[in-house]
Amino acid sequence: MIDVASTRAEVRPAAVAVVVDVLRATSSIVQALSSGYERVLCAASIERARELRAPGRVLAGERRCVPPPDFDLGNSPGGFERPRGSELILATTNGAPALVAATESAERVLVAALLNLDAVTAALAGEEDVLLVCAGTDGRLALEDVYVAGRLALRLPGPRTDAARAAECVAAHYPSPIEALRDSADARALAAVGLQDDLLACARESVIDAVPEAVSGAAGVAVVTENPETLTYANAGRSPLNTLASDP
Amino acid sequence: MIDVASTRAEVRPAAVAVVVDVLRATSSIVQALSSGYERVLCAASIERARELRAPGRVLAGERRCVPPPDFDLGNSPGGFERPRGSELILATTNGAPALVAATESAERVLVAALLNLDAVTAALAGEEDVLLVCAGTDGRLALEDVYVAGRLALRLPGPRTDAARAAECVAAHYPSPIEALRDSADARALAAVGLQDDLLACARESVIDAVPEAVSGAAGVAVVTENPETLTYANAGRSPLNTLASDP
Repeated sequence: MIDVASTRAEVRPAAVAVVVDVLRATSSIVQALSSGYERVLCAASIERARELRAPGRVLAGERRCVPPPDFDLGNSPGGFERPRGSELILATTNGAPALVAATESAERVLVAALLNLDAVTAALAGEEDVLLVCAGTDGRLALEDVYVAGRLALRLPGPRTDAARAAECVAAHYPSPIEALRDSADARALAAVGLQDDLLACARESVIDAVPEAVSGAAGVAVVTENPETLTYANAGRSPLNTLASDP
Repeated sequence: MIDVASTRAEVRPAAVAVVVDVLRATSSIVQALSSGYERVLCAASIERARELRAPGRVLAGERRCVPPPDFDLGNSPGGFERPRGSELILATTNGAPALVAATESAERVLVAALLNLDAVTAALAGEEDVLLVCAGTDGRLALEDVYVAGRLALRLPGPRTDAARAAECVAAHYPSPIEALRDSADARALAAVGLQDDLLACARESVIDAVPEAVSGAAGVAVVTENPETLTYANAGRSPLNTLASDP
């Protein structure tokens, strides 16, 4: 069954969860991994992100769209085009907690944005139990995430829930991604802090081939990488979870 | 602000909540009050409905689309075209609990279906804080309810949330009500028990002028009537709530 969770409160067990926070967390993650960051550590809170700070790690994220004063970067995809370290710590209001929730419920978690729409579609070939998770905004439905979930649902075969059909209606309604993004409340919130150009960066479709995958890290952290198998350490006692739990 | 709650879990305080369970509870309520029932007592459970049984009261409702064996009627709007008593007790899986939840949160609660779409639209003139509550199905989004909420949202002026915009996309997608209803999972559930004709009864648009209003009754009960002011008894100690609490 193809299903859509319109906010992270609706996350439930599934074979594959696909997390969407197109404005901007998942766009930033896709951009960062494509640009050369090895891993993105998504923290469910600003405090958790600060605890993960360490040499070689770049601290990025936002509260109310802007970065906390002690952070290295905000949450604009353009800020991740050149890696400033090997690992990115990303704390965002909606996307990071949605990723953490998904890794706690689904067997496999992919990270989707418009930037990697074709690549995610290809990665879902043959999957029959897919939950498209819209991060939403402060617990409420975000139009742009439902649009991207609907775009993906329209490309997947097989039976689908009413929630997936509704998302498909949203996707079919907009002639182009930028129109859907511009109609959202988050677009207005970004414009209010001068970040309207982020919409253009996030509206680019299928320009990146990366399909990031998230696994559960330490409490409140999801580890995202293009190659989750690399997270299995030779030393069995030193899982990524343990590594993170003892960091910094 | 015009907003949409896609299930009753999203019900929150608002000046006006408009509850939609077009397949079939709110269609049945609109039909029943238009046909001559004075009040509909919506019970959040089958057990609560049985407790309200009394002379002059008709017991109706469903679990998994069909009436419990001791009930007088099911939940087909056609069953309410001729009143069999002065009051209808209605216990349904999704609509009745949504009404109960709405009366506990909103200042005023209207009951909407396609049957009374024009009348509800007129009743909402000048309202600026409207929450359109989709009853949903077993806690999940029901396409047909989002369709009706979207139809109403499209008719209301002023700012709206992303959830309302998404519902409007669903409404705009379907050329006619029956096409939206037929695309829903609930349509398949009704067809599976031979009740596909209920779709046609519920898809009729603006054929009834009633705008039922719901008020909080005893625990787990919403009282629905066209004239809520009649629920104020001369005897101040005998509010509808007290009346119900001591029933039968």
